[in-house]
This record gives sequence, C-alpha cells and structure tokens, in this order.
Amino acid sequence: MLELAKYLEKQGLEYVVDSETASLLNLEMQNILEIEDFVQNIDLAVAIGGDGTMLQAAHLLVQYDVPLTGINLGRLGFLADIPADDIDAYLTPILQGDFFADRRVLLQSQTIRNGKCIDEAFAFNDVVVQKKNIAQLIELSTYIDDVFVHSHRSDGLIVATPTGSTAYALSGGGPILHPTLDALVLVPICPHNLSNRPIAVKGDSVVAINCLSPSRLTCDSTEGIELEPDDQVLIKKHEKSIQLIHPANHDQYYVLREKLNWSKELC
Amino acid sequence: MLELAKYLEKQGLEYVVDSETASLLNLEMQNILEIEDFVQNIDLAVAIGGDGTMLQAAHLLVQYDVPLTGINLGRLGFLADIPADDIDAYLTPILQGDFFADRRVLLQSQTIRNGKCIDEAFAFNDVVVQKKNIAQLIELSTYIDDVFVHSHRSDGLIVATPTGSTAYALSGGGPILHPTLDALVLVPICPHNLSNRPIAVKGDSVVAINCLSPSRLTCDSTEGIELEPDDQVLIKKHEKSIQLIHPANHDQYYVLREKLNWSKELC
Amino acid sequence: MLELAKYLEKQGLEYVVDSETASLLNLEMQNILEIEDFVQNIDLAVAIGGDGTMLQAAHLLVQYDVPLTGINLGRLGFLADIPADDIDAYLTPILQGDFFADRRVLLQSQTIRNGKCIDEAFAFNDVVVQKKNIAQLIELSTYIDDVFVHSHRSDGLIVATPTGSTAYALSGGGPILHPTLDALVLVPICPHNLSNRPIAVKGDSVVAINCLSPSRLTCDSTEGIELEPDDQVLIKKHEKSIQLIHPANHDQYYVLREKLNWSKELC
Amino acid sequence: MLELAKYLEKQGLEYVVDSETASLLNLEMQNILEIEDFVQNIDLAVAIGGDGTMLQAAHLLVQYDVPLTGINLGRLGFLADIPADDIDAYLTPILQGDFFADRRVLLQSQTIRNGKCIDEAFAFNDVVVQKKNIAQLIELSTYIDDVFVHSHRSDGLIVATPTGSTAYALSGGGPILHPTLDALVLVPICPHNLSNRPIAVKGDSVVAINCLSPSRLTCDSTEGIELEPDDQVLIKKHEKSIQLIHPANHDQYYVLREKLNWSKELC
Repeated sequence: MLELAKYLEKQGLEYVVDSETASLLNLEMQNILEIEDFVQNIDLAVAIGGDGTMLQAAHLLVQYDVPLTGINLGRLGFLADIPADDIDAYLTPILQGDFFADRRVLLQSQTIRNGKCIDEAFAFNDVVVQKKNIAQLIELSTYIDDVFVHSHRSDGLIVATPTGSTAYALSGGGPILHPTLDALVLVPICPHNLSNRPIAVKGDSVVAINCLSPSRLTCDSTEGIELEPDDQVLIKKHEKSIQLIHPANHDQYYVLREKLNWSKELC
Repeated sequence: MLELAKYLEKQGLEYVVDSETASLLNLEMQNILEIEDFVQNIDLAVAIGGDGTMLQAAHLLVQYDVPLTGINLGRLGFLADIPADDIDAYLTPILQGDFFADRRVLLQSQTIRNGKCIDEAFAFNDVVVQKKNIAQLIELSTYIDDVFVHSHRSDGLIVATPTGSTAYALSGGGPILHPTLDALVLVPICPHNLSNRPIAVKGDSVVAINCLSPSRLTCDSTEGIELEPDDQVLIKKHEKSIQLIHPANHDQYYVLREKLNWSKELC
Repeated sequence: MLELAKYLEKQGLEYVVDSETASLLNLEMQNILEIEDFVQNIDLAVAIGGDGTMLQAAHLLVQYDVPLTGINLGRLGFLADIPADDIDAYLTPILQGDFFADRRVLLQSQTIRNGKCIDEAFAFNDVVVQKKNIAQLIELSTYIDDVFVHSHRSDGLIVATPTGSTAYALSGGGPILHPTLDALVLVPICPHNLSNRPIAVKGDSVVAINCLSPSRLTCDSTEGIELEPDDQVLIKKHEKSIQLIHPANHDQYYVLREKLNWSKELC
Repeated sequence: MLELAKYLEKQGLEYVVDSETASLLNLEMQNILEIEDFVQNIDLAVAIGGDGTMLQAAHLLVQYDVPLTGINLGRLGFLADIPADDIDAYLTPILQGDFFADRRVLLQSQTIRNGKCIDEAFAFNDVVVQKKNIAQLIELSTYIDDVFVHSHRSDGLIVATPTGSTAYALSGGGPILHPTLDALVLVPICPHNLSNRPIAVKGDSVVAINCLSPSRLTCDSTEGIELEPDDQVLIKKHEKSIQLIHPANHDQYYVLREKLNWSKELC
C-alpha cells in the first residue's frame, strides 16, 4: 500500500483510500473517503491482495462502472496480475493508457418465495445452490429459458461465469470457459446420477433453479441466504459488468498455464 | 410388514418386531420388543425398506453380530435385494439355509481434541469430514499409518468402505471397490488441486485427518459433530462387522449393472 | 424406406433416392439419382437410420445447403428424432411448414506440412488428433488465435462443435454445449497432466495443433490421415453449415434426459 | 554410468554391464555380459534412467528374482528414486543392507483364440485392450472370476496393478492404489456410458476380456498384438514378482506429492 502511495505521489497523481482499507491498515492520511464517496470519485481502482480482493472490490465498483486493476501480493492471480514487487514497471504503462481492457460479466440472482422476490444478489464468479444440512443430498429442478432441463439429487448446482469457471466450478468438474466466450456453465456438485454433466449455455440464458429441499444460496462464496422448498432462484446476466485493466501483454493462457501447473510435467 | 408377518406365521416361525417400527406402523401385537431386547433375541433380522433402512438396522445389530437381510420396497438396492412382491420365493430358501453370506466391514472414527477422545462413531458406508460453513473451502491434512499424505483444500474428504464406494464416494469421483476387497478409499470432495485423486489403501490402515478449519464430521450421512481447528479424526476398521444375507444367486455385478444403468446404452 | 416412399406417394409428393442407398437396398425404381444429381435436386433430405446416418448425409448436403431431417430406426437420436413407426404424425406437419429449424456449424480442418496444405477435411462433430501408435502417448502444442495455449502429452485432443459435445468429447470428460452456443470445446484425451482440462472458446476461434509426434487426424470418426512431426492442423468454423429440421416441439433437454438417462435415478 | 562404475570400483565391488547397454553407450570393458548371462550372475541390478528403464529392466530380471534399484537421470520417479547426482549418499547404505524392499506384482496376460493360447505377455503397469482402428470405438465384455461384469463401448479397458495405477490408468480417471494393496483396477478408457467407472478388485482375481471388435493388446505400453473378434484375453497376477530396492527412508506419499504437484497450490 505504502509503496503504491509513494509511486503515485512520485508520478504526481492524486489518489484516495477507502475508509475500510484505511482503518484495516491503521492509516492516518487526509485522502481517506467513505466507500460511497470513494467509488464515485475515482477513475481507476487499484485492489491490493489477490483474486478474492478483486472480487470484493468489483462488487463495490460495478454500479459506477469504475475500471479495476489488481496488484497481487502473493502468486499471480487470474484477476490480479500486477506483481507487488514491480509496481513501477507494470503500472506506468497502464496509467499512460497502454493496457488490456477485459470486461467481465456479473450475474444477478433473484430468490422468489410465494411469488415475491425476497433476495437479490450479485456474483462475478458463481451463484451456487447447495446443501444446507451437511449430511443430506438436496433435490433441485433446473430450467433454462423456461424449458425444463433436469431434476437432480446432488450436493448442489453451480452456475458460473467464464470468470468463475476457473474457481469452484473447476473443482466440481466444469470446463474452463474463455473470458471472451459469452456463456454460462451449470456444474452439478457430486451428482447422484453419474451422467449428469456440466452444461454450457448462451450468456443471455435465464437459469431457474427450483429447490425441492432446504438448501442455501451463495454468491461468490459469501454466506448467502437459506432456501426453503418451493423457493425459486432466477439467475441471469446483469446489465452491469466490470472492466478489468491488465498489463498490455496480458495472456489468459499464460495465467492458466501458471496457475494450473500446465507448464510442469505431472506424473 | 404384514405380508412378511403372514408369511412367517404360515411357515410356523416365531418373529418379533422392534418397538420403533411397531409404533411407526401403529402395530398392536404381543411380540413387540424394545430395541435392546430385540437385538439380543433374534437369529436373523429382516429390514424392510431400502439401503438406508439396512444401514440403520446394521448400526443396531452390529454389536450382537446378528445377520441381516433386506426386503426392498422400491428399486433393487445394493444391500436390500429381496423384492417385496416375491417374499416367499426369495425368503424360503434363505430360511432353509440356502443363501449367500456377505460380511461387510464397519469403520470406527474417534475424534481427538486436546489429546482426549471427545466422540466415537461408526460407519458402514463412510466417514466424511466436510465444510461446515457452506461458503468456504476447508483445509485438511491427511496421514495414513502415521505417514503424511497431503494437505489439501476442498469441500471435504470421504473415507469409504467397499460398501460406501457405491454411495457418496462414487458421486465424488471415487472408484467402485468390490465388497470382497479388503480396502478403504479416500476421496477428496471438489479438491482445489485437480491432481488430488482418490487413493485406495489396505483395509487395516489407520487414517488420520487433521482439521485446519472448522468443519463437520458425518458418519453414514448422519448429522455428526462439529470439528474445530486442531481436532484430529482417526478412522480405522472396527473389530465388528455385519453379515448380510442375500439370496444364493446374489451377483454384485448384476446389481451394479442395474443400479448404474450399465445394461443400457447411454448417449 | 418403403413406408416412407408409400407415405410420400400418398401425399402426392415427388421424391428421389440416391443411388448408394438404392443399391444398398436393391431398390429398382425410376427415381434414383446419382449423389451429385441427388443433392442438387431436392428441397429436403430425409435420412433413415440414426445419428451416424445423419452425419454422413450432412457431409453430402452441406455444400448445397439442403435442409435435413432424420428418421431413427432405433432409439431416439440427438440428430434423428422422427420415430420410424410414426412417420405420418411427425412428417406431415414438417412438410406443411410447421417445424423447428436448427442450424449446426461445420468445422474445417487444414493440415499444413512444410508450409503447404496437404489435406482439407470437414466435421460436424469433431476434429481429433490422436495417437497412431496405440502404445504411445503423443505430444501436441495448441494455439488459439495464434496464442500459445499448452503443450501436452496425452492420447490426443478433440476439438468439438456443440453437436459433437455429446459424442466423443463427452466420453473424454468434456462439457455439454447447447447447440445454440457459438463455441468450440477442446477436450484432451487421457492427458498426462491431470489439471489439463477441457476449454470452451468462441465459435470463431482458430485452433492450431502442432504435432510433435507421429499421430493421426480423424474428422467425425472417419479414418483420416497420418500426421508427421511438425505437421500443423488448423481448425475453424466453415462458412457453410447444415440446417436440421426437427418436429416443432423439439426439445434438446428432453433428448439429453432420454439419452443420458437423466430421467432415471442412478445408484 | 561411468560415475556409478567409478563409485562401485572405489567400493571394491564387482559389477557387470549388460551387452545392450554397453553397445548403446559404446562401452569397451571386460565385464560385459550378454543379457542371459547378465541376469543370472548378479545380486542386485541397478537401472539408470527413469521409470521406463526400470520397467524394461524388471521384465528382464523377474524370472531370476533379482532385486532392482533405480537411478533417475531426470526427475524423481515412482520407481527410480536415487538421484544421479548423489549416488554415494544413497547407494552406500543400500549396499550395506539398509534399504526399503518393495515387492511389486507382475500381471500375466494370455490371449485365447479358438480355444488355444496364441500369446502370453507380462506387465508391471498394465494390460490394455484398446481400439486398433483409431476412428472407432470398440466393444468389450468383461468377466471377473467367470462372473459377467459388463459389456461396454469405449476406447478400451486398462487392467492395472498398484504400480500401474499412477501411470496410464491415472490419466484414464482411475484411483491411486497404494503399492501394498493387493488389488487390480479396471479402468475404462473414454467409455460411452458415463456411469462406467473404475472398479478395484482383489489381487488374485482373474479378469477375462472378450473382444467383440478388432482391437489391440498392449502390455506396459509395448506394441503388443492385434486381437480379432471372439478373442479372449485372460489377465491375472503372475506367480513371479519383482523386488524394488529403495533408500530406507522411501516414502510413497512423498513421491506422489512431488510427482502430482500436491505440494503446490493449484488454481
């Protein structure tokens, strides 16, 4: 943080810090803004941490369409790809307008109970309906664009964006979706029926999940809400999206190779 | 139930009903025994229902080594394989001593906290350590016979018997273990590391799972207990086992073909 | 065939039979045309058989953009969905203009050796580069739109259309792509590196596979050609496509449920 | 090789070189023996290379029950685990009798055509019946101890030992079998029926594979023989086995962690 601050000052650039980060780091500065002011007064947000931090930041920024870039403190991230120890070399060209802009979609979920929307939530990675009572399978029915797909018993169902396809959905056996592919993927978690496989559909599909068992809704791995039998979760692409700013030479396949150890020979 | 009772009376055989089943079915009979008496006074237990009923019955019977046979009310079960509509044809030879005896192992789990065993449980299918907070991965370390195997982040880890290998473990990507194979299988649930694959080990192995995150222990899909960081779960074969009684022509592969639709051409 | 002929005659419709089918069935009719004439003189092609027959017919028809419908002699097909025993009920509305038109893309593959294209082929399902010497893994490098994706050792790589995603690619662990999704999917066959997972990319991507080992190219499971080290296979969507004609109430998810036994409870 | 020779001479130990290795390396020494003499005149064989070299050596040695140890020239192997750059530190204790002996089973396959055995082969990793015509699925029927298991359409079927469970079988989706588990695992390759999963059976099982399509038999990835419809391949544990000699602190799970990148965080 302090290095970034120093770098920005050296560049003669104005910057502000959001109050939450400031209090977390015990910063005493003048340019601290409450989140609401913060997101309305910046041209570019810089998240420092990892992909999780990027996701949190994206949730805050999406409404104001502020572009977001990320400095990773640890390993290369799928989203955060500026190394913390080389801010200067990576950030300077970006600030000069030489970057790769990468727009990522946002999912919105609406939970319908007795005909009323009781909850609305957003997700960059995934909306997941999963078991609540850890010991029992749940039963779900799925519809896409009002057409019945299947009823299935499983630990749950993941609906992921291309961004989310390399997160939980991948662990569940889903495919990798390239970020530019306008698609969603449905990945059943430990399905009882072994031929119940991931399905990729058009990005503008409306996915409806009807809960037949008590279950739980989570969005981007937040706690979410409890679902009751007969609740319906509607999932579709939100009209908003977030613009990620990467170094100009950003290469999605390089990131995949690094993060999935494709570059290393296994066995 | 009543058909079975009639059948047994016709055969001139004595039978008793456990009090739980009796109250569930509103039976008014003289030969109703409390569970404790019931299990000590029978030569053969007959469970009516499906594989779940068989598992529950097995938990009650295992201490007294009472053989168990099962009448399935619905589809053929992995464990319960006497069809309800043909009790006579299937049960008569069994009662005359013409049957296939199939001994299934029992797992015992011990949960160690601060050096003390705070919980002991039993399982015919599986002992599972899994996430408790539905939105977060857990981190576990695994040891087999005191040798470190791996630390991994996942939704949890299933330790299954051959009996359990066709239950939850199969949905999690595990192999089928033949009931006569003296082995346990460790199946990670949605592991973060994609090369983290199921491992089958000798049946007399001692598996230790060290919890690094709050998680939950379940045995045969019962609710189980909550685990805290630094708890250790020890899993090994119990000295007791249960004897299943099948019709003499029992064929494990036939059951697999039926239940996994191998006999049908998919796609 | 004869039933279809009778049906068409009763409707007062003209029809022709291609010479291959005619000689196969020992038909002696006047309205038999050589393939070349056949495909240029029809408004609708009707294939009788199964999905394999549909694929063969599609290869013949694609150049003239003749719509194709299929009568399945056996089970419901993914492509052929008019039951042979109910031609009248299904075909009559189609011929009256009440149908569901379903356009499927065609892949084209070009094999480049020493800078020259030595082979060109087409596929509705998949282009596959796979091992030739059955006992040895092959090594491939993959590029998408000229960007390096990965080198990998495996039994081969499948590049499938949405149509092909329910064929060989599904057996190899690939996802199901909805027919309306404009995408291709790359599915490695038994990859050595366990984190080498299926990738779905935009439909207008150009996939280049560089062979590092002797291998073999197959398109829609035809024999294909042998590839030498340093050969490059370029795969992209062809400008042509085929129009499948289904009954108006065609439901892709119904077909999936039927063919993948989703409607049945497994285990 | 030369370093090993120097080391052995320094230790005052006699050694011989097999003629194949000698001619491969253009060695001119006196202590070169033809393979037949070589295997009958040594107390310990040292293979230099990797796991492939170990497998080849094991095939030569098994009949004479000569123990085998391996120096790996590249990465750590599953079988060859003495690093080439530290022969002294690893080999000295072994030669002094301080080692871990690890007995690995050998499979034998017999191919029966018209009631006669037309081929006999051996495998430490796996016996594989797979497609011969690269474009077509094959159809196989499997029996275990004369009991029918399943007919299935696939690219083939792998029957692997615990040693082979980390080789081709792992790429095909099979489980890892601990080397001390007395078991075989059957792993279908890209099966058409998605619920056709790996099955682990007792080590003394007799597996019979009936070919319904032209196919090919390979043992430990050697070329093998062509199979015709109605050929039957019988696979069982051979009475011989091979003794691998590892450093005393050998740890199978360490090797797995290293080779499968378990020690690294993926994603």
